[in-house]
Amino acid sequence: MMAELYDFKVDEIMDVFVLIKSADKRTAKNGKKFIAFVFEDQSGELPGMYWDASDEDVVLFQPGKVVRLNAKRENYQGKPQVKIIGLRLAKETEPHDADYFMPHAPEKRSEIEDEINQFIFDITQPTWARIVRNLLQKHHDEFFVYPAAKTNHHAFAGGLSFHTLSMLRLGKAVVNQYECINAALLYAGTILHDIGKTVELSGAVSTSYTTAGNLVGHISIADGEIVAACQTLKINPEQEDVLLLRHMILSHHGLLEYGSPVRPRLLEAEILHRLDEMDASIMMIETALKHTPNGDFSERIFGMDQRSFYKPNDRSDKKD
Amino acid sequence: MMAELYDFKVDEIMDVFVLIKSADKRTAKNGKKFIAFVFEDQSGELPGMYWDASDEDVVLFQPGKVVRLNAKRENYQGKPQVKIIGLRLAKETEPHDADYFMPHAPEKRSEIEDEINQFIFDITQPTWARIVRNLLQKHHDEFFVYPAAKTNHHAFAGGLSFHTLSMLRLGKAVVNQYECINAALLYAGTILHDIGKTVELSGAVSTSYTTAGNLVGHISIADGEIVAACQTLKINPEQEDVLLLRHMILSHHGLLEYGSPVRPRLLEAEILHRLDEMDASIMMIETALKHTPNGDFSERIFGMDQRSFYKPNDRSDKKD
Amino acid sequence: MMAELYDFKVDEIMDVFVLIKSADKRTAKNGKKFIAFVFEDQSGELPGMYWDASDEDVVLFQPGKVVRLNAKRENYQGKPQVKIIGLRLAKETEPHDADYFMPHAPEKRSEIEDEINQFIFDITQPTWARIVRNLLQKHHDEFFVYPAAKTNHHAFAGGLSFHTLSMLRLGKAVVNQYECINAALLYAGTILHDIGKTVELSGAVSTSYTTAGNLVGHISIADGEIVAACQTLKINPEQEDVLLLRHMILSHHGLLEYGSPVRPRLLEAEILHRLDEMDASIMMIETALKHTPNGDFSERIFGMDQRSFYKPNDRSDKKD
Amino acid sequence: MMAELYDFKVDEIMDVFVLIKSADKRTAKNGKKFIAFVFEDQSGELPGMYWDASDEDVVLFQPGKVVRLNAKRENYQGKPQVKIIGLRLAKETEPHDADYFMPHAPEKRSEIEDEINQFIFDITQPTWARIVRNLLQKHHDEFFVYPAAKTNHHAFAGGLSFHTLSMLRLGKAVVNQYECINAALLYAGTILHDIGKTVELSGAVSTSYTTAGNLVGHISIADGEIVAACQTLKINPEQEDVLLLRHMILSHHGLLEYGSPVRPRLLEAEILHRLDEMDASIMMIETALKHTPNGDFSERIFGMDQRSFYKPNDRSDKKD
Amino acid sequence: MMAELYDFKVDEIMDVFVLIKSADKRTAKNGKKFIAFVFEDQSGELPGMYWDASDEDVVLFQPGKVVRLNAKRENYQGKPQVKIIGLRLAKETEPHDADYFMPHAPEKRSEIEDEINQFIFDITQPTWARIVRNLLQKHHDEFFVYPAAKTNHHAFAGGLSFHTLSMLRLGKAVVNQYECINAALLYAGTILHDIGKTVELSGAVSTSYTTAGNLVGHISIADGEIVAACQTLKINPEQEDVLLLRHMILSHHGLLEYGSPVRPRLLEAEILHRLDEMDASIMMIETALKHTPNGDFSERIFGMDQRSFYKPNDRSDKKD
Amino acid sequence: MMAELYDFKVDEIMDVFVLIKSADKRTAKNGKKFIAFVFEDQSGELPGMYWDASDEDVVLFQPGKVVRLNAKRENYQGKPQVKIIGLRLAKETEPHDADYFMPHAPEKRSEIEDEINQFIFDITQPTWARIVRNLLQKHHDEFFVYPAAKTNHHAFAGGLSFHTLSMLRLGKAVVNQYECINAALLYAGTILHDIGKTVELSGAVSTSYTTAGNLVGHISIADGEIVAACQTLKINPEQEDVLLLRHMILSHHGLLEYGSPVRPRLLEAEILHRLDEMDASIMMIETALKHTPNGDFSERIFGMDQRSFYKPNDRSDKKD
Repeated sequence: MMAELYDFKVDEIMDVFVLIKSADKRTAKNGKKFIAFVFEDQSGELPGMYWDASDEDVVLFQPGKVVRLNAKRENYQGKPQVKIIGLRLAKETEPHDADYFMPHAPEKRSEIEDEINQFIFDITQPTWARIVRNLLQKHHDEFFVYPAAKTNHHAFAGGLSFHTLSMLRLGKAVVNQYECINAALLYAGTILHDIGKTVELSGAVSTSYTTAGNLVGHISIADGEIVAACQTLKINPEQEDVLLLRHMILSHHGLLEYGSPVRPRLLEAEILHRLDEMDASIMMIETALKHTPNGDFSERIFGMDQRSFYKPNDRSDKKD
Repeated sequence: MMAELYDFKVDEIMDVFVLIKSADKRTAKNGKKFIAFVFEDQSGELPGMYWDASDEDVVLFQPGKVVRLNAKRENYQGKPQVKIIGLRLAKETEPHDADYFMPHAPEKRSEIEDEINQFIFDITQPTWARIVRNLLQKHHDEFFVYPAAKTNHHAFAGGLSFHTLSMLRLGKAVVNQYECINAALLYAGTILHDIGKTVELSGAVSTSYTTAGNLVGHISIADGEIVAACQTLKINPEQEDVLLLRHMILSHHGLLEYGSPVRPRLLEAEILHRLDEMDASIMMIETALKHTPNGDFSERIFGMDQRSFYKPNDRSDKKD
Repeated sequence: MMAELYDFKVDEIMDVFVLIKSADKRTAKNGKKFIAFVFEDQSGELPGMYWDASDEDVVLFQPGKVVRLNAKRENYQGKPQVKIIGLRLAKETEPHDADYFMPHAPEKRSEIEDEINQFIFDITQPTWARIVRNLLQKHHDEFFVYPAAKTNHHAFAGGLSFHTLSMLRLGKAVVNQYECINAALLYAGTILHDIGKTVELSGAVSTSYTTAGNLVGHISIADGEIVAACQTLKINPEQEDVLLLRHMILSHHGLLEYGSPVRPRLLEAEILHRLDEMDASIMMIETALKHTPNGDFSERIFGMDQRSFYKPNDRSDKKD
Repeated sequence: MMAELYDFKVDEIMDVFVLIKSADKRTAKNGKKFIAFVFEDQSGELPGMYWDASDEDVVLFQPGKVVRLNAKRENYQGKPQVKIIGLRLAKETEPHDADYFMPHAPEKRSEIEDEINQFIFDITQPTWARIVRNLLQKHHDEFFVYPAAKTNHHAFAGGLSFHTLSMLRLGKAVVNQYECINAALLYAGTILHDIGKTVELSGAVSTSYTTAGNLVGHISIADGEIVAACQTLKINPEQEDVLLLRHMILSHHGLLEYGSPVRPRLLEAEILHRLDEMDASIMMIETALKHTPNGDFSERIFGMDQRSFYKPNDRSDKKD
Repeated sequence: MMAELYDFKVDEIMDVFVLIKSADKRTAKNGKKFIAFVFEDQSGELPGMYWDASDEDVVLFQPGKVVRLNAKRENYQGKPQVKIIGLRLAKETEPHDADYFMPHAPEKRSEIEDEINQFIFDITQPTWARIVRNLLQKHHDEFFVYPAAKTNHHAFAGGLSFHTLSMLRLGKAVVNQYECINAALLYAGTILHDIGKTVELSGAVSTSYTTAGNLVGHISIADGEIVAACQTLKINPEQEDVLLLRHMILSHHGLLEYGSPVRPRLLEAEILHRLDEMDASIMMIETALKHTPNGDFSERIFGMDQRSFYKPNDRSDKKD
Repeated sequence: MMAELYDFKVDEIMDVFVLIKSADKRTAKNGKKFIAFVFEDQSGELPGMYWDASDEDVVLFQPGKVVRLNAKRENYQGKPQVKIIGLRLAKETEPHDADYFMPHAPEKRSEIEDEINQFIFDITQPTWARIVRNLLQKHHDEFFVYPAAKTNHHAFAGGLSFHTLSMLRLGKAVVNQYECINAALLYAGTILHDIGKTVELSGAVSTSYTTAGNLVGHISIADGEIVAACQTLKINPEQEDVLLLRHMILSHHGLLEYGSPVRPRLLEAEILHRLDEMDASIMMIETALKHTPNGDFSERIFGMDQRSFYKPNDRSDKKD
């Protein structure tokens, strides 16, 4: 098995294949060019400066390329980084498949797809089922490849569908525990709640916001898509069951301040909002704690109000 | 000319034809029924209690009916009201046309319609012009009859179109004064900004929120309508000019806290938001000052953060 | 089976046995005394005014008494109430056991107790297990009888333990779905999170805040109890595992503004906070929707930021 | 016509006459001195570092001097700057008039002055007219030369009077459209609303806050000036018309949080506040969009809550 | 010694001389007039309703009149009140001096005046001393008679000067304890901080806000007065010592949200703000606790964010 | 008398003995190590960079060591610093006692201790007196050595006890001025209010937060300590006098947002909170003004909402 970025301790020398996640060309104060890299593999990501870059270097070392990195693991002002000793593109005879090095959802795409399809079978109300199928088909490829966000949570390939599935599983537990919940509505809303991100975001690599993302946003994009699907499917967009589904999507950020134009006013909408936050929070904290030593606090987590989280010393008694 | 509600001073006896704006049937603590009326004519509105109402009274005195009211003008805990002496329905030979007594926009519907049409001619960009025409035609009757809000500002018949026109006029002054403003975009956004209220509200009489209004809201309703119009007109809803128009509508409340899912990020969207607030504020203050004596403060205005406004003593030097 | 309060429609006459939940003696403007009652049985609660109360009435009709109520079901300003026709205490030969009429947790106390005990077995870390057992034993009776709150959610007999169990069940689903969660810590924190309410509240009937509740509050009460338990059990209250447990309780309101002196900084503390809110929200909405007709909005729910929730027309497709 | 700073693209070499706007002497980490310049001409401003500055350089290159700049246009971390190749003072035979290079109001001072005087004729109420004339005379030179702010909006020579005139023009449109507005009060309040800035700010070049500006602020400065003018003109500062005018100035920031000690409670005060925000917003957005390429977002604008604004791709259909 | 309002317990009959603090004429639902009185004497104040008032009653029983009240002490919905049995004006041969019954500062006016004068001697800086003397002379009578506020704290005759003196005493303790404090500035600022209330409020009886109070407010009124005093005394209102004094007054509410146009930026201004809040808080809590039984919570205090305060059971160990 | 850090002006050369307060080892962009020092003596503290540090340097120059510093006083981007010319450890024959150079409370520890003991004698209520003595004995050494905070106010050796004493002195002035204050409760609460900092903070040198500080916080630590003391002293922790004392500590931050789980609801708790803020504010402002030139504004003070404070030009008239 190949060595990975996070296998090395501070001051150790590494010689590894990694993916270039981003490469910003900059000019130093002395006028010389350098490249501010972020390298990544499945163990995580680390930045590194490449000084005195030539023009060919700038052309060669593009995001998405796999490189062989010879470097020393360091800490710069409390943050981990690598000091680059040598760098070259991976050869065809070496590991060079970008997709292999990119962080992925922890489950296989095909399994995620299968399990989501099972949930669609449980959407027993026909209007919702038809709209869900229509939109999932329309955005099928993006839905199973895109991340769930640019930087915060589930920011990896397949993150969008994995986050959706994770919420569906939690939702099933809630449905089983409480009476009165309309499971079909909860599942339909969950599957569509972030589908607008397939238009809001640019893709899985070097993710950025599209113009539609900036000017309309994924909540209104999804709402518009439901209206469009109704027109295609000859469903009246103002009949009650459609209004319920639109409300699920529109209200899922919970508060107006967070970008929902209406607050949840259905039991299922309130639950959807809470499942979304629950799953995103757990994922963000787990990610932050992954590289935190026992008995220490993590880095501050942007999406958790800049809180840092504590990793207790003795983790022996955790879930087995 | 007929006498009107606000022609009478406290303790004077009135004998007038008025419209029943609302009529709540209630039970007094002693178990007898009474009706809490609000009467209105073009001079304004006044509440009055009708004690010991019979079952026929409850059936007869419905909102929308014109009645002959014999009553004394009073103040109850600082608020004006009438003490009902006698009440009967207006006869066919008497004034009995509800529409006559209802507060209306201060300009004629046909003139409002003509002037708005002039502005549509100034929408020189074809995508926007087509969408505006499509939606204005679809909601034509409601647009020119509905109020602009349930209670706050322009809460009278035709208020929606009058408020829209008033903003267009202000907008024209702004367009003339500053370079760089895209007039077509500003006018198109202005005309459509509140068109969702034709679905959000129930109508001009006894206005309430529809289920679509409560669960989706007029901002997202309008956004969905634009998407639907694009589909009808074979316009790609994600091409830039459509995104710009959608952004105008989505952002016009200015702040997320006020229900806009995105904040204004176009010069024209910022202006639209400010024109909306400017026109609504002026209308609310003018309405409140109308029945305020000189040298006194108005009632607190709900839509103006509960502020009361001062009406100076000497108004001789105001605009002539 | 006996008739209950909510079996009757507006204007119907009822003749039922109910419990007096509260009875405020007041003086009317005319100087005569009356009693403002709230009656309850397992179907819910309804207010009613008892006019011209004699001094004996005031003595007889105390909270906690079962009475035979002859009354008409009415609406007063949009709120349901009863108009009392006749009222007398229940006789010994009639239903008169207050406990029978009081709303209870929907599961049996013995079953709740057994299931919570199962969770205690899963607290495999000895410090936490000992503290939990110590405190649960100390407050055993109150814990299984008290409500979870004075008015908001789970405000019924046994509500505190039922709410705790409900959170444990949800917590188990979360533990099963995500790696890295310390189940023992989550369960221990969940069981103790509201144990301070056994001191903060006065009891199951006519619940009010104690002086300790007002001046110290249930969060700090519980924290103090853990310190006291440590002293009894010869555990150092500043060793890390105790700090972790104290943090779970101290942070469970999530935000400083909600009375937690520290925000969650453990993965398990964040989850505990979210499970608490999730369970309380669902219970509040379900309770509010119970008496709401289809196609209508519930009353505003105080604990949900005064939102009202919608009960859709067609509930046929809900969970079966 | 001379070349200007913004005529050059990234990596092009420029040889231009520019004004030194600011010149901060600093010490590099290696102990050598350098000067952080901001250069400006009518096309805008650009920063540039001058390394290894001698003591004479520091004396020569003062703010307000015109220099001949030989430099390369660059981007440093996404922000435009120049890399200085050579720098010398402009000779007497070359362009060297600082005033020529300084950004100015887009209209001539004399025209601004004439038009403002026209508005003063429309202040038909004698008390207001006298106070306005008194204060405008007292601060005449500063009023027509000062900027409207240190950095945010209208931060150029003459900006204060140009901003005032711009608001007066908008105000005239509002007065023409709505009845009930006291034009004299609106114009008087508009002209005086920022007059305190002539004391709050230090001047047109290297603008900073005076001690009076920091400790008292332009709102209270202006209010004090009105009181002083009354004393000079033998007007009672507590008669109603003076109170109205003081209220216009005191409330023009709209919210207490923005430094107004009272919120607007006159129709004209509400309008003045909104005109002020409208004009400042449009000016800030236009300035930011000026150097933004089509299809891109501007830099974040400090005075607009850090929003960045979008410049659409096709601007052909804008106002012609 | 005469009996007073608070000498009587619930259900006891009283026969006392009291002052009419306010008398609102209202109309009952049955159309008959009644007067809502608030009576007061030095023990406190109590409301009472006077049913079926004749027109003469309305004329006779004006605020400021002393009356003989025969009444029963009651509680109405948890609030104390009296039930009026008989009421007549006090005769000339009986106690009838309104001033005697009005709540007063707990110290004599002459003593308050003397002690404040002592502090003025400690204002050793000539500019501040001259301005303080000028303004105290100008508003002398109002300053020693007015309350410090309409309803919140020190709302009794002489409250303004007593509150000022109380702050001066606290201020002296602070000056003695910390070095670096400019005592002259602190005392001058303290004496003038609320002097604008002599214009903002209407007087000691039936206190209301004047038009100047509503439109300008006591902070800006005082600031304007200082400017006017400077002009009278030939002091430049922009010299530093005047700016410091103006800053003390302008910033004394501490936060912009509380109506200060600038926040404190002098050590002495920060202290003045804190002394103001400290003295007002203690006075409000003491007043509320005065009529609270031991072991109970007071009514909610408006000026203390609606908190209620606890009066412990055993007060034996309080300050002796 | 030895020269001190702040005896030197910009560009002057100093040769002084100072203490190393902190020493961060870092790596420069060029890969070489350097140490970012903060030096301090009783005149204040100054940073300085030590370039090209050898491994021995890193070992030698630890926080807590006294060194002989040869350096030039400079300003770097507006902040004072030193440019290190030479650095070596102080010899045994030279001043080398760290304690001498460390900033201390401005009064002697023995005097502080004596005066606090006097206040304990004034705690005449036995429960409070016993708890205070128990906890002060338990944490005796830390209490008189620790700072009151990590960085904000009283961040010097002995700061905790000095801050406590300073509040007691102010408290005595308040007790003397107002009736109704329970002096024993105020003094007991004051002495214990920050005692939890002896556990929350790591010590007087290189102060940081302990795990207990981060997860529990000093407020709940102190509350737990009181409960523990009660158990030791056989006092019921839920009897009223203990609840009052716990409330004093729990509420002393005043607002929930500042970490108090309950707001003050005792007169003495409100006063304690205000004395705490008053003393901390004065100390922070005095410290900031100490190195500020006359006629200038201080640096922004973090603990005072980032405000900077003005130091007037003429300070001759300050307290003598």
